Amino acid sequence: MKRFNDLTDFSREEIADLIALAKRLDEHPEPRALEGKILSLLFLSPSLRTLASFQAAMGRLGGDSFVISPSMSIHGIETRPGIVMDGAAAEHIREAVPVIASYGDAIGIRAFAERRSLDEDLADREFENMAQLVDVPLINMESAIQHPCQNLADWKTMDDLGVPSAGGRFVLSWAYHPRALPLAVPSSTVQMAAMRGMDVVVLNPEGFDLPDSIIAKAKTAAESSGGSVTTTRDRKEAMEGAHVLYAKSWSSTAHYGDRIADEALREDLVDWCVDDPWFENAQDNCRFMHCLPVRRGVVVADRVLDGPRSVVLPEARNRMVAQMAVLHRLLSG
Amino acid sequence: MKRFNDLTDFSREEIADLIALAKRLDEHPEPRALEGKILSLLFLSPSLRTLASFQAAMGRLGGDSFVISPSMSIHGIETRPGIVMDGAAAEHIREAVPVIASYGDAIGIRAFAERRSLDEDLADREFENMAQLVDVPLINMESAIQHPCQNLADWKTMDDLGVPSAGGRFVLSWAYHPRALPLAVPSSTVQMAAMRGMDVVVLNPEGFDLPDSIIAKAKTAAESSGGSVTTTRDRKEAMEGAHVLYAKSWSSTAHYGDRIADEALREDLVDWCVDDPWFENAQDNCRFMHCLPVRRGVVVADRVLDGPRSVVLPEARNRMVAQMAVLHRLLSG
Amino acid sequence: MKRFNDLTDFSREEIADLIALAKRLDEHPEPRALEGKILSLLFLSPSLRTLASFQAAMGRLGGDSFVISPSMSIHGIETRPGIVMDGAAAEHIREAVPVIASYGDAIGIRAFAERRSLDEDLADREFENMAQLVDVPLINMESAIQHPCQNLADWKTMDDLGVPSAGGRFVLSWAYHPRALPLAVPSSTVQMAAMRGMDVVVLNPEGFDLPDSIIAKAKTAAESSGGSVTTTRDRKEAMEGAHVLYAKSWSSTAHYGDRIADEALREDLVDWCVDDPWFENAQDNCRFMHCLPVRRGVVVADRVLDGPRSVVLPEARNRMVAQMAVLHRLLSG
Repeated sequence: MKRFNDLTDFSREEIADLIALAKRLDEHPEPRALEGKILSLLFLSPSLRTLASFQAAMGRLGGDSFVISPSMSIHGIETRPGIVMDGAAAEHIREAVPVIASYGDAIGIRAFAERRSLDEDLADREFENMAQLVDVPLINMESAIQHPCQNLADWKTMDDLGVPSAGGRFVLSWAYHPRALPLAVPSSTVQMAAMRGMDVVVLNPEGFDLPDSIIAKAKTAAESSGGSVTTTRDRKEAMEGAHVLYAKSWSSTAHYGDRIADEALREDLVDWCVDDPWFENAQDNCRFMHCLPVRRGVVVADRVLDGPRSVVLPEARNRMVAQMAVLHRLLSG
Repeated sequence: MKRFNDLTDFSREEIADLIALAKRLDEHPEPRALEGKILSLLFLSPSLRTLASFQAAMGRLGGDSFVISPSMSIHGIETRPGIVMDGAAAEHIREAVPVIASYGDAIGIRAFAERRSLDEDLADREFENMAQLVDVPLINMESAIQHPCQNLADWKTMDDLGVPSAGGRFVLSWAYHPRALPLAVPSSTVQMAAMRGMDVVVLNPEGFDLPDSIIAKAKTAAESSGGSVTTTRDRKEAMEGAHVLYAKSWSSTAHYGDRIADEALREDLVDWCVDDPWFENAQDNCRFMHCLPVRRGVVVADRVLDGPRSVVLPEARNRMVAQMAVLHRLLSG
Repeated sequence: MKRFNDLTDFSREEIADLIALAKRLDEHPEPRALEGKILSLLFLSPSLRTLASFQAAMGRLGGDSFVISPSMSIHGIETRPGIVMDGAAAEHIREAVPVIASYGDAIGIRAFAERRSLDEDLADREFENMAQLVDVPLINMESAIQHPCQNLADWKTMDDLGVPSAGGRFVLSWAYHPRALPLAVPSSTVQMAAMRGMDVVVLNPEGFDLPDSIIAKAKTAAESSGGSVTTTRDRKEAMEGAHVLYAKSWSSTAHYGDRIADEALREDLVDWCVDDPWFENAQDNCRFMHCLPVRRGVVVADRVLDGPRSVVLPEARNRMVAQMAVLHRLLSG
């Protein structure tokens, strides 16, 4: 394993192995497994869970890490190719990325979507441009279209809770948020749930359909796992018998990159705040999942988030545990 | 031991044990004592000594730590309960704190006073709200009213220097500073000195009396340790025979939370800058202590700070040493 | 070895030993060599390579480090002696530096030139003021006039590549940059190349001559190593038979500290951008070196930087490797 970028690069068996390794490392610590090993962490956008959980994961395995983020330490990093750098930026990613990578035995990179062109973001252009500059094992810590560490943590969280895979109904629902957010989590989450063999339902208002290529990719994954993928605008229909409601806000795809049009569209959608009535016809113990950070009273009502359905805290802890497995696989032996 | 929050939660014997452990770990390093263990460090206000000394302490014991502070990495953290989060903050402490805690084997939290209500700050409301969200061992890295790591370091510093406990005279003096500073250090320092069995004198100008509950609590501590607690506005009387002058500026308690009134009061108090004449009738080797950072020429004259009385540097180093003991106690075995 | 500040403090044999140690540690890791040891890292100016490579170096040897920089964590640090601190800064270096140093087994300090007075910067006043406050082993992580870690890495890079020392021609050339940059790299690089026994040629436009004392010092070094040091404004002459072109921009020394005059002078010098024609009469495999960060299309053309001459990436990686040797020498055994 040289790259952890897209869950669909792996077979179900490989994922099961990673999750088993994660469980084992959580229960039986290996505090010297990665001694003397270094993880480079490059954050081109802000982070809390990822920042904390990768440092903690590496430390638990006896390794160490360092963090580079523009806000902390750099004069600004230029990403455009072929440019004459006579502006503010003093360094180009063509030097910064390979240099940072060369100090570590592996590198994690976070780079959000530019949200100028849907095609470019679906191709994960910015992340791939940086990935090409790296020759050590690489972890995608969230890019325009991928968030494999979140996906692996979510899969493990459902395993931990006994959420059924075959026959389990997984609803990914759009939720209101005042800002246009990236597609990485919804797009990669449908792949994860489809690969797990679940019946995946994507629920969202008009103008917020996930890109066709994302749905098609998930359908392919579902075919080989025995699951299914459908889309709907009908909340009642979506939630019928649901085992999991996974809430997330994302940008309008109809007006991708057009902030004004996106805002005009979403301003009527403030009722897309997950609340108790959503669960009326779901399974009794239907779980509420969210990758965090989450806006209380906006994306989800306090009573859901603080209630027994919510598994957002074990889900967040599983980020660290899942990443320990990924790091162990990439770096040990 | 699950919580290190208030020195008065511990007996004198327990504190003596901690200090003995600190001394032992300083003299006989245990670089593998905490291998694979992680300390989460959450700073909701700026720091230098605490930030550095906790990371160093953890590393010396073979563990690791990570730092989260809003300025570094987070979009802003909401602390108000029950609020609809449609403003700037993207995350609530109800998620952020337990998540950060879950990545560590222990967590340290720093959260300064809000200085809106004296009662709320005396109840340490903001810190306690966060503490309730944590189920791993918790260290108070300075809150509205507590600074137990500073207190333990100060106690050890006096032990190291042979400052007498029974019969030792400890003067806590207000000092001038252009800004209204929190009550945490003065309030917890009087408890520390009273518990150590010293004759504690609190010296301050009108309008800056420490809260009655703080003085009452210190008197209770003094009763069982054989010390005493008195207050005065008379510098000469206070310093008579003093073994230690501990200087610190703090907010006006008469005008708590009222910045304008506080400033009006303090502008006539620029002569509360500790200088050589203060020590005229003190013990010959009366020590000058301060928790740092300290404003030169404002809180204290250079000649005192750079002179033989000053023990601020060993005092600051003892932060790390004391914290090693606390971490060892919380996390080993 | 208690201080790593100036390459000329060491003999050629000592430097060869350090480079041999660096090579050995790179090829045969010693992940427990510095267990329980702490490196304090104080950055008074921004950094990427130094920030990352020191943390990585320490971690590879089993030690740990912490980073303090004003932007991260401090209210501002006052450096002027004898000042009444009633402004913004809440702490003076006279406390901050020794405290930070006392938490580590060694300290690295970065402090750029103030660029007010050439004499003061040549005397490395700001760095030396801080160095006096430290009683643990000290590493200069770039000061007004020194950058010994860069120098050691550069020396090793040339060794790795088989660049000849005796008879090797090393051209240090000024390059265009929109801002006035410090003298640390050019001034210390000429010493390095002279000590290595190379024929050093300093190439720069009028107004940008390196200070006489720097050239004189390099000539002394060259005398005992069998090398030479010359200066010229003639690019063709400089590059004749060159084995290495080391590019770097620096401040006008004719108008040192005068930003307006410096800008007026450099605005006509945009053609000092290293490009293929520069290498016409150099050795066929003449290398391009630069300490990074480098502005593409400004300091150097993309085709040079991305071409086979460029060794800036191994050069940057050697920062970490060289520093492992320095840390091992300062801290082990």
